[in-house]
Amino acid sequence: MRPILNLQSFCFVKMMDENSIGIIKPQTYTFAQDEPFILDSWATLGPVTLAYETYGELNVDKTNAILICHALSGSGHAAGYHEGDDKPGWWDECVGPNKAFDTNRYFVICSNVLGSCYGSTGPMETNPKTGKPYGMQFPVVTIGDMVRAQVKLIDSLGIDQLFCVAGGSMGGMQVLEWAAHHPERVKAAIPLASTGRHSPMLIALSEVGRQAIYADPNWQNGDYYDKVQKPDDGLAVARMVGHITYLSDESMQMKFGRRLQNREKYGFEFQTEFQVESYLKYNGNNFTRRFDANSYLYVTKAMDYFDLTEPTGTLAGSFAHSAGIKFLVVSFTSDWLYPTYHSKDMVTALTAVGADVTFLDIESSWGHDAFLLEVETMTELLGSFLERLWQEDNEEQRLNGVSHG
Amino acid sequence: MRPILNLQSFCFVKMMDENSIGIIKPQTYTFAQDEPFILDSWATLGPVTLAYETYGELNVDKTNAILICHALSGSGHAAGYHEGDDKPGWWDECVGPNKAFDTNRYFVICSNVLGSCYGSTGPMETNPKTGKPYGMQFPVVTIGDMVRAQVKLIDSLGIDQLFCVAGGSMGGMQVLEWAAHHPERVKAAIPLASTGRHSPMLIALSEVGRQAIYADPNWQNGDYYDKVQKPDDGLAVARMVGHITYLSDESMQMKFGRRLQNREKYGFEFQTEFQVESYLKYNGNNFTRRFDANSYLYVTKAMDYFDLTEPTGTLAGSFAHSAGIKFLVVSFTSDWLYPTYHSKDMVTALTAVGADVTFLDIESSWGHDAFLLEVETMTELLGSFLERLWQEDNEEQRLNGVSHG
Repeated sequence: MRPILNLQSFCFVKMMDENSIGIIKPQTYTFAQDEPFILDSWATLGPVTLAYETYGELNVDKTNAILICHALSGSGHAAGYHEGDDKPGWWDECVGPNKAFDTNRYFVICSNVLGSCYGSTGPMETNPKTGKPYGMQFPVVTIGDMVRAQVKLIDSLGIDQLFCVAGGSMGGMQVLEWAAHHPERVKAAIPLASTGRHSPMLIALSEVGRQAIYADPNWQNGDYYDKVQKPDDGLAVARMVGHITYLSDESMQMKFGRRLQNREKYGFEFQTEFQVESYLKYNGNNFTRRFDANSYLYVTKAMDYFDLTEPTGTLAGSFAHSAGIKFLVVSFTSDWLYPTYHSKDMVTALTAVGADVTFLDIESSWGHDAFLLEVETMTELLGSFLERLWQEDNEEQRLNGVSHG
Repeated sequence: MRPILNLQSFCFVKMMDENSIGIIKPQTYTFAQDEPFILDSWATLGPVTLAYETYGELNVDKTNAILICHALSGSGHAAGYHEGDDKPGWWDECVGPNKAFDTNRYFVICSNVLGSCYGSTGPMETNPKTGKPYGMQFPVVTIGDMVRAQVKLIDSLGIDQLFCVAGGSMGGMQVLEWAAHHPERVKAAIPLASTGRHSPMLIALSEVGRQAIYADPNWQNGDYYDKVQKPDDGLAVARMVGHITYLSDESMQMKFGRRLQNREKYGFEFQTEFQVESYLKYNGNNFTRRFDANSYLYVTKAMDYFDLTEPTGTLAGSFAHSAGIKFLVVSFTSDWLYPTYHSKDMVTALTAVGADVTFLDIESSWGHDAFLLEVETMTELLGSFLERLWQEDNEEQRLNGVSHG
């Protein structure tokens, strides 16, 4: 843990568990400064910056690196605390000393995706050609583009092969993209609550969120960065739709039921009165303080384009060179957004190409959010999968007369 | 069938099937002109008008009346054609000569609910106190209020007891409300794809639609009736959310897949390009031409308040006097909006009070919309249930020396 710098830090350090990463400083990596980065659309972009964080130490052989890929609204801040923050990174419960991704052993990397708004190049960043934010001049990016940018980052760290790449939801799509199109760079892959092919229902839910943003007059065709009024109302509605889909009917029954918020009987008015309404409104508004509406458009669009059955017509076609990767595929019974059949389709395709696949459909009532909420199960599952690989890898290295540095 | 009046009528009459009702003229009934109508909120309203339609003939004993209750966006126009229209009423496939609700035998009534915008008193109608549309001055109404208004209409038609009351979704809530609180007025009840208690997920989905409307600056706190710009964008987003929930993952796979609209490859832009996006946009926009945003607020709010476990704490408590009613309860396997457990809860409660209940969970991939789309199954099911009741009833009448007139 880094030194405690002030009283404010001291207060929240007390809230950290003993296995917390502690205070973390974000880093950036910039490429495509001379030669532009060519996107799947054939549009070009440059320079490209990725904001990222690392936890733990890279070993001498550079064989202990794990890349964690974040979901739609996530960032490169997966674990630990930023100076002055009282909340840790989004997957802090799984990343740290003695946690699922054990930073005593692994060097964990997490980078903000291309097109997002947490320091990586995206619509809110400055377009060098105009000196103004890109806005809707930013080119449409794909999951493939996001991952090729991550490959550049991994290259820059001198890592030939990732010990593992892991992520849930859109993070899982990136995992599959790594496995399909950069198979030699990955030893193991863990796609959680994800899909190899975005379904029409998922596209529909993305589109309704985008339409809510377009409908906000403050969106101004994406040109709002110097305005006082931002398209917060539209973005909040988009996020509310999202929140409903991350939960399940059952988890909403458990979490809220029909309980009223701060009142005992119906008001017969249009104020927020059910707890579930209050939850949605709070989270919708909160999101507008931490996410950019244009990034919401770009990142959802990237998800919509994701389809690993292209160009061969089958998932197995895209995994033709992935047989050497070890997979842990996980779905959750109450996840209606990325139902189990998506994961089963992956497993069928991966098995067909001869990959080593472990598949679990975890009984959970938490819906899509289960991959973040079922901490104990995930810790045990991810931990034991990685432990097995680590031991197998060590055994292999020993037979070859090499060891993890 | 009424006489064909002009060539335009002649053209669409050709499109009607031979069992069409033909051309129908809407009717209205107005009450609470002297004494105001007291709502569940204790607010008062008057006068109250219900727009309604009837199909078939009421028999002399007035024992052959069936009331059909519509869902959120429906109207009193259940069957037949309005003069000049090329589309029939919303449940035309089930209402007409030789159809499920056979107008050769039954007198079918359908009325637009209180608070809606198809001719019944609601926020877009004139407030007699101000001479202007009610807007948000309209009092919040409940499913109970809607049904008590329907009771007044049935009274006005001289009908003591409905042979049957039937409806899907919010229509099913009205059916249950009739059965629970006006049991002596109903012989049989058919709630389809419905619930006795609106769930937090349903409340959440209602609220996100309302938030989309509130977020539209043209909503103007509901005071937009004399403005050129209406809150169409917000209402369209609300409707798009609705449309997603009426389908299922599987039906969207079948109906749209990942097919593109009017193009062969991705455009890498934010135009509508997937068929499912086009469907949503078309239906969202279309809805703004036929529905009122304020009515959307009021009708969804009425649904959110619906909870027949009140005030006793159990559904069975509300059905304490419903033992004499014969029920046909229907759910659909892919309906994730009103999942089967809602119907099973009804069945458990109704069985507990000793009612005669037939329950079917129909295998369908069409999601919530199945109650409108599974026409053949519904025709057979509703038809045979009603036939059984009709025969039982005739037998009873014969034993008592009376017959259906």
